[in-house]
Amino acid sequence: MSKEIKVSPRTPKGFIEYLPEDQILFSEMFQKIRSTYELFGFTPIETPATELTEILLAKAGRETDKQIYHLAKKGEQISLHFDLTVPLARYVAQHYDKLTFPFRRYQMQKVWRGERNQKARFREFYQCDIDVIGSNNLLVDAEIPSVIHAVFVALGFSNFTIRVNNRKVLNGFFEHLNILDISKEVLRIIDKIDKIGKESVSKELQTLGLKKDKSDAILRFIDIKGDNADTISQLKLLGANNTTLNEGIVELETLCRYIEMFGVPAFCYKIDLSIARGLDYYTGTVYETVLNDYPDIGSICSGGRYDDLASYYTNKKLPGVGISIGLSRLFFKLREAGVIQPSKSTPSVVLVSQLDATYLPNCLDIARKIRAKGINAEVYFESDKIGKQVKYANRLKISYVVIIGEQEVLSGKISVKSMITGEQRLMTVEELTGLIAVTE
Amino acid sequence: MSKEIKVSPRTPKGFIEYLPEDQILFSEMFQKIRSTYELFGFTPIETPATELTEILLAKAGRETDKQIYHLAKKGEQISLHFDLTVPLARYVAQHYDKLTFPFRRYQMQKVWRGERNQKARFREFYQCDIDVIGSNNLLVDAEIPSVIHAVFVALGFSNFTIRVNNRKVLNGFFEHLNILDISKEVLRIIDKIDKIGKESVSKELQTLGLKKDKSDAILRFIDIKGDNADTISQLKLLGANNTTLNEGIVELETLCRYIEMFGVPAFCYKIDLSIARGLDYYTGTVYETVLNDYPDIGSICSGGRYDDLASYYTNKKLPGVGISIGLSRLFFKLREAGVIQPSKSTPSVVLVSQLDATYLPNCLDIARKIRAKGINAEVYFESDKIGKQVKYANRLKISYVVIIGEQEVLSGKISVKSMITGEQRLMTVEELTGLIAVTE
Repeated sequence: MSKEIKVSPRTPKGFIEYLPEDQILFSEMFQKIRSTYELFGFTPIETPATELTEILLAKAGRETDKQIYHLAKKGEQISLHFDLTVPLARYVAQHYDKLTFPFRRYQMQKVWRGERNQKARFREFYQCDIDVIGSNNLLVDAEIPSVIHAVFVALGFSNFTIRVNNRKVLNGFFEHLNILDISKEVLRIIDKIDKIGKESVSKELQTLGLKKDKSDAILRFIDIKGDNADTISQLKLLGANNTTLNEGIVELETLCRYIEMFGVPAFCYKIDLSIARGLDYYTGTVYETVLNDYPDIGSICSGGRYDDLASYYTNKKLPGVGISIGLSRLFFKLREAGVIQPSKSTPSVVLVSQLDATYLPNCLDIARKIRAKGINAEVYFESDKIGKQVKYANRLKISYVVIIGEQEVLSGKISVKSMITGEQRLMTVEELTGLIAVTE
Repeated sequence: MSKEIKVSPRTPKGFIEYLPEDQILFSEMFQKIRSTYELFGFTPIETPATELTEILLAKAGRETDKQIYHLAKKGEQISLHFDLTVPLARYVAQHYDKLTFPFRRYQMQKVWRGERNQKARFREFYQCDIDVIGSNNLLVDAEIPSVIHAVFVALGFSNFTIRVNNRKVLNGFFEHLNILDISKEVLRIIDKIDKIGKESVSKELQTLGLKKDKSDAILRFIDIKGDNADTISQLKLLGANNTTLNEGIVELETLCRYIEMFGVPAFCYKIDLSIARGLDYYTGTVYETVLNDYPDIGSICSGGRYDDLASYYTNKKLPGVGISIGLSRLFFKLREAGVIQPSKSTPSVVLVSQLDATYLPNCLDIARKIRAKGINAEVYFESDKIGKQVKYANRLKISYVVIIGEQEVLSGKISVKSMITGEQRLMTVEELTGLIAVTE
């Protein structure tokens, strides 16, 4: 069957896959995010990987269009989704009458973007989104940071900051400066402040035709510092008598009071007036989240409030709030920084080894009893020397090797070798499963 | 923002998505399969949705090629995978040096096929695969039915049959009849016996140029009935002195003895000589699984042993055994037949309602305490009448509504309304979480 010409086995550029040890670690993070979302009563939905191209393009700008993977197939023109927000909008518009609002949904799927190939810029990656659709209530905005907090605590982090802002504050301030017509350009420049610094932002602002006094005012504005109460005070002291700005300040103040009520520790959230997020989309509260020890990773969880989710597909007005965790990128960055490390290459906690084929029925019976307690266990089927079997357990980082021979069968017990301590003891199956229930 | 022209919200033809209640049910089945695979020590891998087209086409026949979704993008020519076997072969060939063998992997991902659009023929569907690569040991063949058994028991089924056969028995018998050169065509016809019946199979066999005595012999062969011991006896009595056939008979006999040793109940597996499975691919044991109460659904879990997984990508000889559950189709069919029913529209078990904004801090505190016990709980944020809040819980099939008012705050207890019994009682948070731990 061997062919002369082989196709060299490799993945397409920009598409990533992991060895089992990393895949297990990735899956664990995925499941923790999932179960935390469910803990807060978010309900799962899953949309197809593809949408009709006209659905995707209804909203997508030209920049996004370039990134879309279209499928070359006769019949309907379909494309791979590039985010989970457009599919959500289409889903809610399509199934509106069958959904209960406020609609709390989570969605954790791959999305595809034909981006230029750069390091840690994947063409296929997971997004883990939650949204609450159909409520204007600021309590919903305040719940989001409590979910973000719970997720990152579940993932083992403690030193992170959820940065919050409100688009009305920004927009109102721009109205006040009479630069609302170029706010998109201004926001795009402000958004780069972490990357390029104040001076470059000031320069870029002036290339927009802004006088120095206005670009200074903008820089002073986004430079407002202090704790949340200070920030609110300084915003009020701006004395800019603008309705939108004042509304934004009140919302931001209320939001902070609510977030506290939701039990998020004070050191975990902070007003940051430099956060703008998506240019057209967000209309109220916006969020970014940073790991304070790894600022280079950038925002690991972002989102905000929008007025109208699905205006391209329905006349129903659907306000909401949502966030997204780009898990593939986060995983890659954390792994690269050595923050997370794989610890096992198999879900198996126990390897039942095989000393002698005679005792195989006993081995299988023991494995069944261990699994009956919900503990992952595999049996070594090859007739290899015990040393090779232990080596296999060692390579896969399996914690316990069970050995069954004449002595064990006669005594009704099993020999258990701990791969962590190297110690070997005779015990009952129940003692082993009890031990694992405590330690794993 | 409202646009005059809306794009009608809909999914592409042949692509399915579910409302939350069905999505929850689907996810539960998915998780049960996943955790059962892990219970047996299968390790997760996930490959990209796309492969280089040359990788996919190395193995795919012309029929498959027609079904492949190619991506219309400059640069590398890539396509969506149409199964998980080709990606597995590529993965093992590519990462061979970093894997530990026997390599026990599971993989549960969507695959795509541009099939003609028919009912329950999806263009996007989940496959849930396990394979053990790198072992010729028949114990591995025998373990597979024990995994299939555990999966379907976990899914709530008891009346199913795992049908087993061995390709060597078929091939050896064909050698004996001197029809090995047309065995593909013969197998293709035999494979249809459940659908078209014996007579049509006989006719079709004769159109291949087979004399009546040979087509009769084939029909007698695949009609061998009885329990597994009977079948083996009758095979031996065929008296066909063919090495491959005799090897197959011995393997089948040993397999059955092993399956029993693995603890699979005798009524759950059966030799069925009519099973051929994939024409070129399988070389030894083959499996199909049917729900006896729903024979129309066809095989719900199939697979077999192969000699050489990745001959297109490597010179390394990689024998293995694997099975696949087509979960999307299975789910659709079970749902259609009314075998499974959704029971909830949200993961939330508890809704903490809001009688009065004054008590909101208490509500949030109670919700946090419930979640701390791992119980999914959401808070009703809108200031609606309690009747509307209870209705919301009812629509989403949330089991318990917590009500907190003056009396509750003063007593340090909570009122809990059971949405199942309608009964309402005052209790502590611990009593509620204890109750749920027992019942849910």
